[in-house]
Amino acid sequence: MKKMKWKAIVLCLMLTMGLSAFAEVGAEEVQTNLNWTWTLIAAAMVFFMQAGFAMVEAGFTRAKNAGNIIMKNVMDFSMGILAFWAVGFAFMFGKGNLLGTTNFFGMGLADWDWTFFIFQGVFAATAATIVSGAMAERTKFGSYLVSSFLITAFVYPIFGHWAWGSLFGQSTGWLENMGFIDFAGSTVVHSVGGWAALAAAIVLGPRIGKFKDKEISAIPGHSIPLASLGVFILWFGWFGFNCGSTTTGTSEIGLIATNTSLAAAAGSISALVISQMIFKKADIGMTLNGSLAGLVGITAGCANVDPWASVIIGLVAGVLVVLSVLFIDKMHIDDPVGAVSVHGVNGAWGTLAAGIFNAEKLFDPKIIGVQAIGIAAAFVVAFVGGLIIFNVVKAVMGLRVSAKEEIEGLDIGEHGYSAYPEFPSHTEVSLFK
Amino acid sequence: MKKMKWKAIVLCLMLTMGLSAFAEVGAEEVQTNLNWTWTLIAAAMVFFMQAGFAMVEAGFTRAKNAGNIIMKNVMDFSMGILAFWAVGFAFMFGKGNLLGTTNFFGMGLADWDWTFFIFQGVFAATAATIVSGAMAERTKFGSYLVSSFLITAFVYPIFGHWAWGSLFGQSTGWLENMGFIDFAGSTVVHSVGGWAALAAAIVLGPRIGKFKDKEISAIPGHSIPLASLGVFILWFGWFGFNCGSTTTGTSEIGLIATNTSLAAAAGSISALVISQMIFKKADIGMTLNGSLAGLVGITAGCANVDPWASVIIGLVAGVLVVLSVLFIDKMHIDDPVGAVSVHGVNGAWGTLAAGIFNAEKLFDPKIIGVQAIGIAAAFVVAFVGGLIIFNVVKAVMGLRVSAKEEIEGLDIGEHGYSAYPEFPSHTEVSLFK
Amino acid sequence: MKKMKWKAIVLCLMLTMGLSAFAEVGAEEVQTNLNWTWTLIAAAMVFFMQAGFAMVEAGFTRAKNAGNIIMKNVMDFSMGILAFWAVGFAFMFGKGNLLGTTNFFGMGLADWDWTFFIFQGVFAATAATIVSGAMAERTKFGSYLVSSFLITAFVYPIFGHWAWGSLFGQSTGWLENMGFIDFAGSTVVHSVGGWAALAAAIVLGPRIGKFKDKEISAIPGHSIPLASLGVFILWFGWFGFNCGSTTTGTSEIGLIATNTSLAAAAGSISALVISQMIFKKADIGMTLNGSLAGLVGITAGCANVDPWASVIIGLVAGVLVVLSVLFIDKMHIDDPVGAVSVHGVNGAWGTLAAGIFNAEKLFDPKIIGVQAIGIAAAFVVAFVGGLIIFNVVKAVMGLRVSAKEEIEGLDIGEHGYSAYPEFPSHTEVSLFK
Repeated sequence: MKKMKWKAIVLCLMLTMGLSAFAEVGAEEVQTNLNWTWTLIAAAMVFFMQAGFAMVEAGFTRAKNAGNIIMKNVMDFSMGILAFWAVGFAFMFGKGNLLGTTNFFGMGLADWDWTFFIFQGVFAATAATIVSGAMAERTKFGSYLVSSFLITAFVYPIFGHWAWGSLFGQSTGWLENMGFIDFAGSTVVHSVGGWAALAAAIVLGPRIGKFKDKEISAIPGHSIPLASLGVFILWFGWFGFNCGSTTTGTSEIGLIATNTSLAAAAGSISALVISQMIFKKADIGMTLNGSLAGLVGITAGCANVDPWASVIIGLVAGVLVVLSVLFIDKMHIDDPVGAVSVHGVNGAWGTLAAGIFNAEKLFDPKIIGVQAIGIAAAFVVAFVGGLIIFNVVKAVMGLRVSAKEEIEGLDIGEHGYSAYPEFPSHTEVSLFK
Repeated sequence: MKKMKWKAIVLCLMLTMGLSAFAEVGAEEVQTNLNWTWTLIAAAMVFFMQAGFAMVEAGFTRAKNAGNIIMKNVMDFSMGILAFWAVGFAFMFGKGNLLGTTNFFGMGLADWDWTFFIFQGVFAATAATIVSGAMAERTKFGSYLVSSFLITAFVYPIFGHWAWGSLFGQSTGWLENMGFIDFAGSTVVHSVGGWAALAAAIVLGPRIGKFKDKEISAIPGHSIPLASLGVFILWFGWFGFNCGSTTTGTSEIGLIATNTSLAAAAGSISALVISQMIFKKADIGMTLNGSLAGLVGITAGCANVDPWASVIIGLVAGVLVVLSVLFIDKMHIDDPVGAVSVHGVNGAWGTLAAGIFNAEKLFDPKIIGVQAIGIAAAFVVAFVGGLIIFNVVKAVMGLRVSAKEEIEGLDIGEHGYSAYPEFPSHTEVSLFK
Repeated sequence: MKKMKWKAIVLCLMLTMGLSAFAEVGAEEVQTNLNWTWTLIAAAMVFFMQAGFAMVEAGFTRAKNAGNIIMKNVMDFSMGILAFWAVGFAFMFGKGNLLGTTNFFGMGLADWDWTFFIFQGVFAATAATIVSGAMAERTKFGSYLVSSFLITAFVYPIFGHWAWGSLFGQSTGWLENMGFIDFAGSTVVHSVGGWAALAAAIVLGPRIGKFKDKEISAIPGHSIPLASLGVFILWFGWFGFNCGSTTTGTSEIGLIATNTSLAAAAGSISALVISQMIFKKADIGMTLNGSLAGLVGITAGCANVDPWASVIIGLVAGVLVVLSVLFIDKMHIDDPVGAVSVHGVNGAWGTLAAGIFNAEKLFDPKIIGVQAIGIAAAFVVAFVGGLIIFNVVKAVMGLRVSAKEEIEGLDIGEHGYSAYPEFPSHTEVSLFK
């Protein structure tokens, strides 16, 4: 009798558990759907950063090249996303040791993997587009496109494989294995872009008129409103960039967003203060680059530092970007929009800071050491890789437009167009006299 | 004895199932909430496309009409959403055969139905705003508003009822019943807008100076940066447009986003290449329209084609838009921003392509045939409907501003304003001489 | 025997309930994650409104001050978010009666609280940035920054504590206790910003050339496209502002979005009609401010009125904003972008309307009375608080730039820059003659 009762209870229990399990899977499935949806929305926001880059770069350069710089941004995304689909994703997330070699053209991706793909694809395009700023106002359009394609197809995914390869669950990079922290890509995306930009600026040489003898001329950008709009768009997109790097819709995204905004805010303030001290004016370009420097700086550590540390990271980033811009000018390297200082230097700083201010163990020399290794590896891959690419392209197709075209403007030379056909410039107006 | 045990088990089981069901409803409810939230976010992104259209159209037209074109975009959304609330939603999703006739002024909508309403409302406004580009620089403001109202209130919902009526669960349109595939509206939204735009351009006639004898003059737009910003905003919004058309936050949105971006990228590239071949310059306007053509082209099939097919669809779209722009010019029809080529022609191509590259059954003549019927039906409704509306408005209130106003600019004539009161134009500057 | 059976059943039932409960928690957890994710996305959209304000204010003012106004917007957000983290959040949501006094520097916030923090932080920054419009074209940069900091740190959180303190669950404000309805902040955010803006405009005095004797001169803004882009961005951001104020991803957001868009649309239309009647032109600036007025007007009641009421609220808002702009001009108060009329006056109207059209009980004098009390309290806090702050700043550091700097433009004076260094103005061109 008793036995039978227990049998009944056990049977009932099993059925209960079976059904409950079924119900629970329901909730897990919904969480998975939430994760996909969130990641997709974040991907859209990161895509929109292309508009931010386009506006920042157009605003910070001259009107005669505005159409050209925008075409670069449209086309490096267009070619980048196709390159990432064809080979980049495979190199970065495919099976393989130093490099992945599966999943070319998205082969083998399950339906739900495409959300991960598009999120990673817009990241890859971000790295590529950083370079365009440093190459502004003097690069042949075709040569730019080839270089940009090579960076997205090879340089970015190689380093990415080392630092983020495990995200797709097929490989693990050697940097990850060491415990390298780069949550949303201060190094993987920004430094890689920034160091490639440095290589580009060196190989290209400065714009005509930038350095005369020992003099450094400021070449002011043609539209502060466009540049600032670009900064706001980038800041907005960074909510997707940093918070979306969770790829899960969970509670931690709030702290990430807070860290991101505090660092950007602190970067704006310290860049403003330091530029006020140096130039005796509240410099607009420096302040805007300070916001971006704060954003780049917090990208590595946004998920593993506390808010007070984010403020420090941002404050340092804002100072660093100003000093770096001045230093790069002094080196007679011409980086029209400050891409190297914003993305390269502050990407490195942010990666170091993610180790220094790691909330679980502050100031741990071992962690900081690993961060330094990652920073150095990124520099080697991106700067050397960049030097090779830009020198080869220079040898094969030429990298720079003619002096005549540079003076006249690339919009006319490359595109047969003026970006503002109705608005005469000061130069033109004075010719009317 | 045994009986009693079984009774106990059955009773226990029923209770278990009841409770489990309750728990499961929990997960289902959350999925429903996720669906609403996702759809609402997508609606916001589609709304933002209004800014994209405004910037594209302003950038591609002359400074003297920039304020006017922006007012058109602000007002066609404003009137459109009210018209859709009052009658459009009822015609499109209400009960009825050829036309819905319930739910005027949102009557009978349950609380949760409003998410569906706002998502459909921003779609309707998109169709309307497409027309404004083709009518740029010569249309009376009041007449434009009346025409736009009529299109959103009648033309768009009629065809929408046939193709998408079942989405609200009250009706089924005859095109749906045939198996017509138009996931996010290559035809329902873009072709309908594009063919109405064609009717408008024909009834209006060309701008002064566009066609002299057999000569075709390019009338360059006044701001490439604004136009390109618009394209980036539209591309961003398209993540909501295409992925949001699932109205569910589920795994398929990743593939839709990938398809959308690959097609847009391919469209940019092929438009650039073909325009380089034809004009010997990397044409900016054509490339930007190539991006948009790729986006329009993938809209119908984004959820039922594979990535490789998306690339082909985009490549063809980019070529088509260039050829179509040239053809429409040759017909001496003046479409200042290329609305007919981008939305009409590539809407049709995309709808056909959704049949051709349908992943479940490639190249199925039967499916392709149904697609062709839908394309033709949309053309008849929108082009003929447009011809009627524009001719009636022309007869009743006049459609075109005076030649004097057109030459002086619509900003002054219609709004007593200049969009850029501080920046003199080349013309003005030469007058100073 | 029977007993035993029942024991078995009860035992089984308890186990079932335990497991089911466990499963249900799963779904609840996912809903909570969905709420956080939604709130975070909404926060990003509200952050993006900063770009909207920057573009509206830059577009509606003169080119010579465009860089300055943008710097104000970048910096008031930067300082605002830091101020809100340091003290503002504590004053607004900390424990305490008239003012919170816990949680300074985010102390005591749990991981998941940061989503709430960032959402509230971007709201606080919105209130601050409203003021910048009224202070445009004549305010010392440093003095602006100090004033803006004080508003975000003190004025905004004090009133916020009274009306929204309970949102964080630690306090309840006296206005809340009376039943004050201000769902997304017509009063808490917009009126507070608007009345502080009024104080600022009065203390600052009008721009040179605005009022000569009894004459009122229009000083047209330099870029309608930028201003309209700003309006579209704000409208987009408002989906996050109003719908996100649920802080839960649930069914009600659809109706909120619909109400928001209908009111904005109605505001655009009535402002257009009334300005056509008064000025005999379809005024662009008034129409754009009409859209914003509709958005501000619906903000308080978006979750508790029906769509038809939203249309009425918007229609009234569009008329009010035009009349208020004219009235404020007549008072010889110079508010360059109409911030007082859009945010102050329509914030008050919207708060009243949320009582009048409250769907649960229409036209209830008791509810309307409470609304009026809240409106008055906000006016006292923000206008008097503003008067004190601006007068103190004026006394200590001076508030206004020199007449020479004002005429030359603040971009040169404060930043050593021109926002458009390549485009000559009409004035400059005529000097060339």
